[in-house]
Amino acid sequence: MKSESNLAAQAAENLKKIRETKPLVHNVTNFVVMNFTANVLLAAGASPVMAHAENEVEEMVSFAKALVLNIGTLDDAWIASMVKAGKQATALGVPIILDPVGAGATKLRTEAAKRILAETRVALVRGNASEILALGGGAAKTKGVDAADSVDAAAERATGLARELGVPVAITGPVDFITDGRRVLRVANGHPLMGCVTGTGCGATAIIGAFAGVDSDPVSAAATALAYYGLAGEYAADGAAGPGSFMIRFLDALHALTSEEILHGAKIREG
Amino acid sequence: MKSESNLAAQAAENLKKIRETKPLVHNVTNFVVMNFTANVLLAAGASPVMAHAENEVEEMVSFAKALVLNIGTLDDAWIASMVKAGKQATALGVPIILDPVGAGATKLRTEAAKRILAETRVALVRGNASEILALGGGAAKTKGVDAADSVDAAAERATGLARELGVPVAITGPVDFITDGRRVLRVANGHPLMGCVTGTGCGATAIIGAFAGVDSDPVSAAATALAYYGLAGEYAADGAAGPGSFMIRFLDALHALTSEEILHGAKIREG
Amino acid sequence: MKSESNLAAQAAENLKKIRETKPLVHNVTNFVVMNFTANVLLAAGASPVMAHAENEVEEMVSFAKALVLNIGTLDDAWIASMVKAGKQATALGVPIILDPVGAGATKLRTEAAKRILAETRVALVRGNASEILALGGGAAKTKGVDAADSVDAAAERATGLARELGVPVAITGPVDFITDGRRVLRVANGHPLMGCVTGTGCGATAIIGAFAGVDSDPVSAAATALAYYGLAGEYAADGAAGPGSFMIRFLDALHALTSEEILHGAKIREG
Repeated sequence: MKSESNLAAQAAENLKKIRETKPLVHNVTNFVVMNFTANVLLAAGASPVMAHAENEVEEMVSFAKALVLNIGTLDDAWIASMVKAGKQATALGVPIILDPVGAGATKLRTEAAKRILAETRVALVRGNASEILALGGGAAKTKGVDAADSVDAAAERATGLARELGVPVAITGPVDFITDGRRVLRVANGHPLMGCVTGTGCGATAIIGAFAGVDSDPVSAAATALAYYGLAGEYAADGAAGPGSFMIRFLDALHALTSEEILHGAKIREG
Repeated sequence: MKSESNLAAQAAENLKKIRETKPLVHNVTNFVVMNFTANVLLAAGASPVMAHAENEVEEMVSFAKALVLNIGTLDDAWIASMVKAGKQATALGVPIILDPVGAGATKLRTEAAKRILAETRVALVRGNASEILALGGGAAKTKGVDAADSVDAAAERATGLARELGVPVAITGPVDFITDGRRVLRVANGHPLMGCVTGTGCGATAIIGAFAGVDSDPVSAAATALAYYGLAGEYAADGAAGPGSFMIRFLDALHALTSEEILHGAKIREG
Repeated sequence: MKSESNLAAQAAENLKKIRETKPLVHNVTNFVVMNFTANVLLAAGASPVMAHAENEVEEMVSFAKALVLNIGTLDDAWIASMVKAGKQATALGVPIILDPVGAGATKLRTEAAKRILAETRVALVRGNASEILALGGGAAKTKGVDAADSVDAAAERATGLARELGVPVAITGPVDFITDGRRVLRVANGHPLMGCVTGTGCGATAIIGAFAGVDSDPVSAAATALAYYGLAGEYAADGAAGPGSFMIRFLDALHALTSEEILHGAKIREG
């Protein structure tokens, strides 16, 4: 799969803007991935901030170019903060990217994701196939926080789901699938080792946040972000001895990747 | 020390099962090591999930093959969640592995560990010498979360302690000591650099969780897990320039180690 | 810039003492950097402990040689714990090092930092230029948690601020600036890649904690700690392919640096 040339150019352009403007990405995210997420955003050239207190999130999000909400280790206080941050982001027009980690696995997670979707204006949801299917009320096969559904199975229903929710969705897997219910983009960048490191999915969501901070179309922001992120994974895997060295090489690659390399390496296509 | 051949074979067999069945290990663990623990479990082939909300843990643990409770950064809400998760695991027969980080250092930690032991059916406790001694009411020399007692000193009392608690114990150190009060196993795998990286003890407990998910005998699950984990430490240390590169090589080694290598490299003996 | 020879000797001596006595450093710090901070302290030879529960911090800090308070991801419960730990440290004469992460960005952070300064006896505050300026009530240009003010601009006002607060301050940047309101020290060690890894600032604060555990003068403790830390950054950058490999090489360098190398490599000067 080669990239539609205009989408590859958009990917290169978005990355250039991130490095020039260093968009502040406000994350209310889970404990497991906070460090990795911050390092992923810094390596890309963005400026990460983590803040979760109910009496702080509204102020913090007002400086941000994007808000990333991730329910990977949540409890009631964090849900309240996410909704509060999300409402403020909605009021200010700051794009919200939602990562419904483990939706479908427990009632708390499924309902938290649905509540955020209902009470705030989410720009895009990024999840694995099972998590995305769980948002539609379908019978998803989630096992903990790992997907048990294929991207293909989810993609079939994702277009309808995006329309139903009124929110674009990105399903990541061997080939990523992004749709707003009408337009469909697929991204074939990535490497299997990404599944052996915790937080690579959450990091993808955060990178979509950075791209959404410089690209007002959530569908192209997500597709170009995932092409950049997946391409860094391909570069990192080349020579990695396992998941540890892959993780380190991945941060190096996110930092080193040039717009020129993305122009040639992005594998995004329409439909 | 060479391995009793049946125990080395059991280690190889357990690892094979983990890679084939990818047991879900539910962790209620501390903030410091969440990322490393998840990466250790993924590298081994298991499927980690972190969930701590009181209104979620019962549902999450019902999918799990093992529950790991780690008190490394606790407060009252987390203790309540650990007990709730532990009670559900007890009811469902899910093996619970307890890591009493810092027991003996503060009253909160000692009492939390004792409460978990009293209110749930723990399959095995893994700690350093000081932490294990603290559970018996003895005068342990804990300094923060690092051991100030030798494994030998603790081993002398561990057999009685395991009987008294009715719970097998694993004391890790230069030579690990595992006992259920009758049988005693010792594991001589490992490397001093493991003590220079935070979370290697907590990671050992999580790996015991994964092994307990495929081996119903907690004593052999712990000994085989520690042999695998320590052997990965030996491989990682060879060529490491310090604790940073060791940590990365360690994740690579956990992922790369073959059943054949464990068969030959495990150093487990009876008595 | 070469080091005043007595300060370089002090740096070497302090590191030697840390490795010999392994001072326990109690951290109440943020979720993003807990793992990295613990690894930084371990690599240096200190003994880290993280504990934040209100019903535990007083007991834990009583064993510690230093208390590090870091407001990077705070909420009301954590602020209460920090104040409680700080009051106990004050009573016991345990030096407190404060990292006012994001002070100036939100009211919650600015007020939390000011409250800790008012209610406990802080030995030294370490921050970037914007964070330090925010403590003085000046108009700081904070963007999330990254500095938007130059060290030079802050240094001009830092001497007066240290006097006003009655607390020594360390402003880190390309050249670090440390003052108690009378004496001024500057440290020129470091590398730009340190800004591409999350938690390097927080790690610097923690290392100052370790040095303050063996050096009763907070100004020389901070300057010698920053020289050691920055020199490790210089060593790590040599050969790093990006922020990922830099981070790993940095932990290796913190562990490997000899007193001899610090004696020759430290760049600390008076005035």
